[in-house]
Amino acid sequence: MSNNVIILAGGQGKRMKINSPKALCNVVGEPMLEWVMSACENAGLDEICIVKGFAGEQIDAYVEKRTSKAKVSTVLQAERLGTGHAVMMAEKFLRANADGNTLVLCGDAPFIDAATIEGALKLHMQKNCGVTVVTSVVEDATGYGRVIRTKHGISGIVEHKDCNADQLSVKEINSGCYWFKTSDLLEVLFEIKPNNSQGEYYLTDCVELMINKGKAADAFISLNPNVALGANDRHGLLKLNDIARMEIINRWLDEGIEFTCLDGVSVGRNVIIGRGTRIEAGTELRGNTVIGEDCVIGRNCILENTVIGNGVSLNNVQAYNAVVDDNAKIGPFVQLRPDSHVCKGVKIGDFVEIKNSTIGEGTSVSHLTYVGDSDVGSNVNFGCGVATANYDGEKKFRTVIEDNAFIGCNTNLVAPVCIGKGAYTAAGSTITGDVPADALAIERGQAVIKEDYAKKKLAVRTKKFEDAHKG
Amino acid sequence: MSNNVIILAGGQGKRMKINSPKALCNVVGEPMLEWVMSACENAGLDEICIVKGFAGEQIDAYVEKRTSKAKVSTVLQAERLGTGHAVMMAEKFLRANADGNTLVLCGDAPFIDAATIEGALKLHMQKNCGVTVVTSVVEDATGYGRVIRTKHGISGIVEHKDCNADQLSVKEINSGCYWFKTSDLLEVLFEIKPNNSQGEYYLTDCVELMINKGKAADAFISLNPNVALGANDRHGLLKLNDIARMEIINRWLDEGIEFTCLDGVSVGRNVIIGRGTRIEAGTELRGNTVIGEDCVIGRNCILENTVIGNGVSLNNVQAYNAVVDDNAKIGPFVQLRPDSHVCKGVKIGDFVEIKNSTIGEGTSVSHLTYVGDSDVGSNVNFGCGVATANYDGEKKFRTVIEDNAFIGCNTNLVAPVCIGKGAYTAAGSTITGDVPADALAIERGQAVIKEDYAKKKLAVRTKKFEDAHKG
Amino acid sequence: MSNNVIILAGGQGKRMKINSPKALCNVVGEPMLEWVMSACENAGLDEICIVKGFAGEQIDAYVEKRTSKAKVSTVLQAERLGTGHAVMMAEKFLRANADGNTLVLCGDAPFIDAATIEGALKLHMQKNCGVTVVTSVVEDATGYGRVIRTKHGISGIVEHKDCNADQLSVKEINSGCYWFKTSDLLEVLFEIKPNNSQGEYYLTDCVELMINKGKAADAFISLNPNVALGANDRHGLLKLNDIARMEIINRWLDEGIEFTCLDGVSVGRNVIIGRGTRIEAGTELRGNTVIGEDCVIGRNCILENTVIGNGVSLNNVQAYNAVVDDNAKIGPFVQLRPDSHVCKGVKIGDFVEIKNSTIGEGTSVSHLTYVGDSDVGSNVNFGCGVATANYDGEKKFRTVIEDNAFIGCNTNLVAPVCIGKGAYTAAGSTITGDVPADALAIERGQAVIKEDYAKKKLAVRTKKFEDAHKG
Repeated sequence: MSNNVIILAGGQGKRMKINSPKALCNVVGEPMLEWVMSACENAGLDEICIVKGFAGEQIDAYVEKRTSKAKVSTVLQAERLGTGHAVMMAEKFLRANADGNTLVLCGDAPFIDAATIEGALKLHMQKNCGVTVVTSVVEDATGYGRVIRTKHGISGIVEHKDCNADQLSVKEINSGCYWFKTSDLLEVLFEIKPNNSQGEYYLTDCVELMINKGKAADAFISLNPNVALGANDRHGLLKLNDIARMEIINRWLDEGIEFTCLDGVSVGRNVIIGRGTRIEAGTELRGNTVIGEDCVIGRNCILENTVIGNGVSLNNVQAYNAVVDDNAKIGPFVQLRPDSHVCKGVKIGDFVEIKNSTIGEGTSVSHLTYVGDSDVGSNVNFGCGVATANYDGEKKFRTVIEDNAFIGCNTNLVAPVCIGKGAYTAAGSTITGDVPADALAIERGQAVIKEDYAKKKLAVRTKKFEDAHKG
Repeated sequence: MSNNVIILAGGQGKRMKINSPKALCNVVGEPMLEWVMSACENAGLDEICIVKGFAGEQIDAYVEKRTSKAKVSTVLQAERLGTGHAVMMAEKFLRANADGNTLVLCGDAPFIDAATIEGALKLHMQKNCGVTVVTSVVEDATGYGRVIRTKHGISGIVEHKDCNADQLSVKEINSGCYWFKTSDLLEVLFEIKPNNSQGEYYLTDCVELMINKGKAADAFISLNPNVALGANDRHGLLKLNDIARMEIINRWLDEGIEFTCLDGVSVGRNVIIGRGTRIEAGTELRGNTVIGEDCVIGRNCILENTVIGNGVSLNNVQAYNAVVDDNAKIGPFVQLRPDSHVCKGVKIGDFVEIKNSTIGEGTSVSHLTYVGDSDVGSNVNFGCGVATANYDGEKKFRTVIEDNAFIGCNTNLVAPVCIGKGAYTAAGSTITGDVPADALAIERGQAVIKEDYAKKKLAVRTKKFEDAHKG
Repeated sequence: MSNNVIILAGGQGKRMKINSPKALCNVVGEPMLEWVMSACENAGLDEICIVKGFAGEQIDAYVEKRTSKAKVSTVLQAERLGTGHAVMMAEKFLRANADGNTLVLCGDAPFIDAATIEGALKLHMQKNCGVTVVTSVVEDATGYGRVIRTKHGISGIVEHKDCNADQLSVKEINSGCYWFKTSDLLEVLFEIKPNNSQGEYYLTDCVELMINKGKAADAFISLNPNVALGANDRHGLLKLNDIARMEIINRWLDEGIEFTCLDGVSVGRNVIIGRGTRIEAGTELRGNTVIGEDCVIGRNCILENTVIGNGVSLNNVQAYNAVVDDNAKIGPFVQLRPDSHVCKGVKIGDFVEIKNSTIGEGTSVSHLTYVGDSDVGSNVNFGCGVATANYDGEKKFRTVIEDNAFIGCNTNLVAPVCIGKGAYTAAGSTITGDVPADALAIERGQAVIKEDYAKKKLAVRTKKFEDAHKG
């Protein structure tokens, strides 16, 4: 027996005014579909079938790029004829898994969670239901379908506009997420009719058909207050972002993380932050970023899939797929590009880019420097304006700088090149060959002083300066 | 017949604690006077007369700098004796346009709009009124003058403190904006008296005088809820900024623009943004900035009067009077100064300044580079640390870099200079003369290796390093 | 007679999940203890005794680092047995000052203010009280101890859980701050018993004991609504930050400072800002920063202990212990490190770091430059990419650049070195010796042009470029 899921992701969201499936709209940096898929995977579901429709190729592209735990397939709903019709498109998927249960949910209701999926399945199986509706109890149910309970389960779902006075007072709403016994679903799915003003096949009609056939139907109340939330336009999407953003931040406040001002702070839901760490205003933590204890991150950092040790201090740093070890101090105005590894106690100052390089322990890269495709040892000192010339127009080469080397200001290191242990390069030198340990490499032209050269020029500049300060 | 406008801009706003006219205080980056003047121009009014008072020379300076569609003049109100007195100062302007209608409004109530001005004029002319008051219906009218309606129009405006119980319940308020039949206004203007505790001439007294003379008076209800809003202090001004900022952003949300977090986001009212574009936190769009479709702008961009194509990605970029073509990718930490043109598919990395230059298609400027006063071809590659030396202390010269050239790291290009098609410059070279197509230009000194130079120095540094890591 | 203070700072704040005393948690950039200590000092109290407990060595370290007006000592409360027990630990301090009055307050209730301390002391002395409780009248007193007034003073403090119906309706609460006549306190302090469910010694029991002994007891209502506020977890701490942040900003709005968007704006409580200055979004002003009139500060500036003159414009500048004189224009993307002095009318462009240097009047440092340990005269022009090589791996040396000098692009100035008045350095030169006034210093290698060098290379790059643009 297998428990699988059909995710409905065919809608465009016209009011978003985009040429993409609505389920690919972002909430805190990830498509809503991603939120839903990962909840399903975290609940241990093995197979996901996504019903795509509008711009379905974008769904396929997303699925292909994604590293999925579950087995994922897609089917196309060529016409948009309702949720019931969408599930019909997955008939083959249903039949292949007919011995188990199938979860059906919306790819654009991002806040479904694994605990809800698991809890609902447990109830579903315990009660041997044909269908179990995931519900939410809300203060204001306006617009939502109400779930009508009986002694033994539910008698159906009534759309808001069809509710009588009693039903209007019901606060338990349909979240749009259902567990079906797959074989029961197949029994009724093709019996539903588009007998409504929209001319659409409604999946909720399956619930009534099942009850009529004597199948058990029940409802599982999710403790997650946001389980039914979706968005129809950019205002609604912004609201989902706000809700998710504050929920994640509140979780980290609970864990003792210090936030002094939340303005512009965004923390991805998979980010991990260690105790005693402070996250400052304007900082965005994305993807699988992990931050250690007692760090100061911010202001205005962007960290994406980056691993930060303990006691690290970052000030206006952008890092992408990088690793920073304990007690490093970086910034302001620094970019760590992919595959950078900044070791323990490294100091990186302002206007520095590191790319695809290791910077050894205790090394100092103070200002206006680019280190790319390099293996830098420990206790190395970089002067200002150092450039690794790693690209000759055809290929990229690596630069090696061994421990204790001292790289003078505005040195060019033309790769492939190796600066030996403790070696020096003189300021302004372009180094094209290896430098032995302890040596000084100097490339310097002839120095000439031309006396009185500047007198005439000065007169012009002085006049300009005076003119500028007259006004 | 002509329809003109008198803008009252004499007030200081003492509680702002500035030495400027209050009407020059900014709302979302533009003086309140600018908001009012452009609304009048958008409503097609031909002549604007600004009544200046406190620091009137600043009003003149502003008007002179401004590119105005309407003909704009100013008159001085030397003493601050009320709104009626202010309009008296414009007597000459009124007499010159006596065959038409005159709009009178406040230069520090920024949210007046062209539709309101036009709608009120239409009513004013249809009903052949002496005066038509622009009104607003508000929930809480406390402090505002109430407009008292009769069967055929209005009977007057009653100040809050003079209202009886019935009048207090009126929710229709005077916005401080009026259309007058100019000749009727001239007939009564000099009859108003400063018979009040402030000893001021109130323009509202003209309404009563007109009605007494049997002129028609009516009121036009603006659909704009903010039409009467002004500010008396910095708190109030901040509130106006907030209102305007959210109104503009909500307009773009309606248009399908993606905002994921509004913190620090500010969009000028004349900015245009294409569909599918995302505006990230901390981004400020100023002036006549135009952004294409499917761009990502942010975080922390400032774009001023800048034109951005489609599919452009900007990360922490500041651009002033620049043009960026499709699919360019720029940032983080980049400044585009005026008259920069970044062509299609260009990649600009970190710590780059472009000034008064064209960067041709597909060219790459990766890091720590200044390109000024240059014409750069397509598919050029800039190494790290390139500087165009465009200024010799007297004059600025241009640099030309032709297609496919490759500029080595830390190259200095001393203008005027031309790097030919496909030519190379070696890292660390200072190029003072033209380089032919396909050539390599190299300026390099003598390279010397001094063995064992660094041994003693290393001992000192190693000790320092160890000392630093003892604690 | 002396008036002194005991600050209770022994608590950990477990729910903050930190390994530090709770009183060292920050509110708007300063530990709560700092807020309390400075309020006491501003009220003119001469001696402060801090009762430390959890991680007390951090309190000691903080006190040692701090420049205190008052004489400060600490005592250890080894076990956490209540507020009364904490005060017992300071017995020696009390006995040494037994002829005066002692204020007792909490190190983690940061919003106590000097006016409250002084007002309460005045009442305390006028009424010759044994104890005067500082109170606050609040809308919702839930959870707080109520102060019960009598005709002549107070009859005691009743904890919320012990209140009867009448007492529950009392809105005057105990702020946890008390003035004691020191001798009276000593008389009762050691009589209190831990007869309560927590087994703790409560300082409030002293109030009852005093009243029983016939001492006068009164309460002083603070006008400061936040006087009793503290925080138990990170959520509460964030709330304190928000309250303090908005209170400071509102104070500056009152003073006529322009804030256009408060997102990410943080102003330290000791910062001073001159009239007509605008503070833009994302700007943080720390410590003893002083800003003159008519400046524009922001966006995204961080200024720490920095003094800014009038008419200064800063854009994305970070400055630490620096001085900037009138009309300087700096940014974007600039760092001024400690002991930088930027003189009048200086222009600093993008990607510039200044450290421990003076930049003379009217000097221009446009881009990608590091000026460290330098004395720069007036009207100097820096080209792009200039580096002062102030460190030779052993020592740091100073660079002197005299008035009107012109430093070419990518010049290295190897300190110690002096560039004379009006002298020029040629682009790309490394200057290791002094340059006389008006001279041109040029260090240049041999320039070679290798024809047709690049033809083959170009083919490779062209292919890459085409491949990249195929997709």
